[in-house]
Amino acid sequence: MKTVANFSPGPSQIYLTVEDHVRSAFREGIPSISHRSKQFEGLVAELKAGLKELMQLPDEYSIYFTASATETWERVIQNLVAQRSHHYVNGAFSSRFAEISRQLGKVVTETRVPLGQGFAGSPATETAELIALTHNETSTGVMMPVDWMQQVRQANPGALLSVDAVSSLPYPALPYAAFDNVFFSVQKGFGLPAGLGVWMVNDRCHERAEQLLKEGHAIGTYHNLPTYRQNGVKNQTPETPNVLGIYLLGKVVKDFLARGIKTLRQETDYKAAVLYQALDQHPLISSFVQESGWRSKTVIVAETGEHTRKLAVYLAETGLIAGDGYGELKKTQLRFANFPAHSREQVEMLADRLMAFAG
Amino acid sequence: MKTVANFSPGPSQIYLTVEDHVRSAFREGIPSISHRSKQFEGLVAELKAGLKELMQLPDEYSIYFTASATETWERVIQNLVAQRSHHYVNGAFSSRFAEISRQLGKVVTETRVPLGQGFAGSPATETAELIALTHNETSTGVMMPVDWMQQVRQANPGALLSVDAVSSLPYPALPYAAFDNVFFSVQKGFGLPAGLGVWMVNDRCHERAEQLLKEGHAIGTYHNLPTYRQNGVKNQTPETPNVLGIYLLGKVVKDFLARGIKTLRQETDYKAAVLYQALDQHPLISSFVQESGWRSKTVIVAETGEHTRKLAVYLAETGLIAGDGYGELKKTQLRFANFPAHSREQVEMLADRLMAFAG
Repeated sequence: MKTVANFSPGPSQIYLTVEDHVRSAFREGIPSISHRSKQFEGLVAELKAGLKELMQLPDEYSIYFTASATETWERVIQNLVAQRSHHYVNGAFSSRFAEISRQLGKVVTETRVPLGQGFAGSPATETAELIALTHNETSTGVMMPVDWMQQVRQANPGALLSVDAVSSLPYPALPYAAFDNVFFSVQKGFGLPAGLGVWMVNDRCHERAEQLLKEGHAIGTYHNLPTYRQNGVKNQTPETPNVLGIYLLGKVVKDFLARGIKTLRQETDYKAAVLYQALDQHPLISSFVQESGWRSKTVIVAETGEHTRKLAVYLAETGLIAGDGYGELKKTQLRFANFPAHSREQVEMLADRLMAFAG
Repeated sequence: MKTVANFSPGPSQIYLTVEDHVRSAFREGIPSISHRSKQFEGLVAELKAGLKELMQLPDEYSIYFTASATETWERVIQNLVAQRSHHYVNGAFSSRFAEISRQLGKVVTETRVPLGQGFAGSPATETAELIALTHNETSTGVMMPVDWMQQVRQANPGALLSVDAVSSLPYPALPYAAFDNVFFSVQKGFGLPAGLGVWMVNDRCHERAEQLLKEGHAIGTYHNLPTYRQNGVKNQTPETPNVLGIYLLGKVVKDFLARGIKTLRQETDYKAAVLYQALDQHPLISSFVQESGWRSKTVIVAETGEHTRKLAVYLAETGLIAGDGYGELKKTQLRFANFPAHSREQVEMLADRLMAFAG
């Protein structure tokens, strides 16, 4: 059976324009251009402007490139934390962010809730220098409501707020002014081949990194914030980066701008509603996340219990590829990405097929 | 004027089969596959086997992926040096490797020679834990003779030997058994789009990293050697990597194996001889590197003095793109990459055009 739609949450379905953009890239000789050339600087400048427009990112933010969100976790802690970070943990990825901090020798505190649940009550933390929020926990399909994130900010004015938005952007309208840095990688919501991360940081982060450096802390080398900034002001990168990936991201951001962020958001909301409705009405399967305010719009997780394997095969028979549940939940859950690359028609087909499943 | 050949040393000319391989990748759905899938593990296994065959790499070596050679510099020092590294410095890139070690808080010693010269005399160093050799200094076109590298090994049996072969591989027949780790990135000799580095390490490196970890040193997080190994034995990677880049490298390695490493080496030798002959016979320009034993076969640097701009334009008129001299040498030198992507015909055309240049 030919794949009709790949709902795996990442690497996920490639956005429909990407293959054409790759062809253009080769036609234009992009894979051979120097990362110290005017042409490259132009690509980066255009991409940054596009991202700022698409995300309504405040001017104060700088945009840097990493190789992956995993790298970004490391750079966040390395550049911004001398001693203590606090992590809101509700799944495998938020947990790994905390683990990275521990591996870098920091004192890590955590607010933990069971998988699939949101955080309730007082969001005040101990005196951490940085608070790590995972906006969308890809492993369990829990998305933090913006209001709640604002409360964390208000309760912790002194801490830097770092937001992992790997599997949610470009969908959410994030209150960037309330955060200090936000990051994503391109193989999720941007529908691109993996191998590029984007890290957006404000001036407070630059100041913190400079201060740590002055105090003699090891803040890394080519990807420390002073080096990023030194190159970034010229629209260059510290190292030879994934030039093709940067070019492609620029092209897809343009495509998204042409569709309009409002349309992208409305479509995401609509498709999520269609899927949650199917799960809520289904006699055999259900939404893993119960609290509606914490249900992810971009990664929908189904509690499929004993039906898991059979359902995955049933979907695959019509070319619909479900994502496995994460880790130990692989045997009892399926995950469905709802990114801009997934069309309304594909999602409606998926919902119909889910409803037709009778065990 | 259409580009006939791009002799810039990297990102450089793309190998002629790469665009077809990209098309195959999209046809096969490679950009969407999970890096935890059997399909991905198969790609990695095939690539590792191909690289081992192409480079005649001893079985003992493990192969890991980084995002760039710049990242690899950082990982080498982080994983393998507690206190002291020694660097042979004869240009911008060997110097930056040393700088990375300094930034990581290590005590750095150096053996320095003027730009364009080889290292002479006794290769014994002080008591560094690691000795860093830059096999081919891309900024100046100096390539270390294998015999001399062997002498460094013999004079320093206790130190780990780390070899930066970024702009030389796959050409050289390196004595891997005399080294402890060797690395390259794909946008030079492999003719691929940038965004992937390859780090080959022996058991001694694994043991050293484990020992440093046990002693409480910070050896990094997702790209420390224990984590690399844990994932690598399954042919997986710690993070979502540049999957497309890994696929393409596998394909190009197969292409190189089909041509045969012996042929690739002979062609490289022939093309280098053609270029050095032109420089040696030319009335106005000359080879920057004088000692023939230290002349790079893969990056040929011309001392072009006051003729630099005019010569670059003269070459460009027939579609031949020269690489700029590096850094402060930009005004008086041109660099010519001699990689497998550069055909005999292109190099002969370049030599003819050089000889026709009369100022």
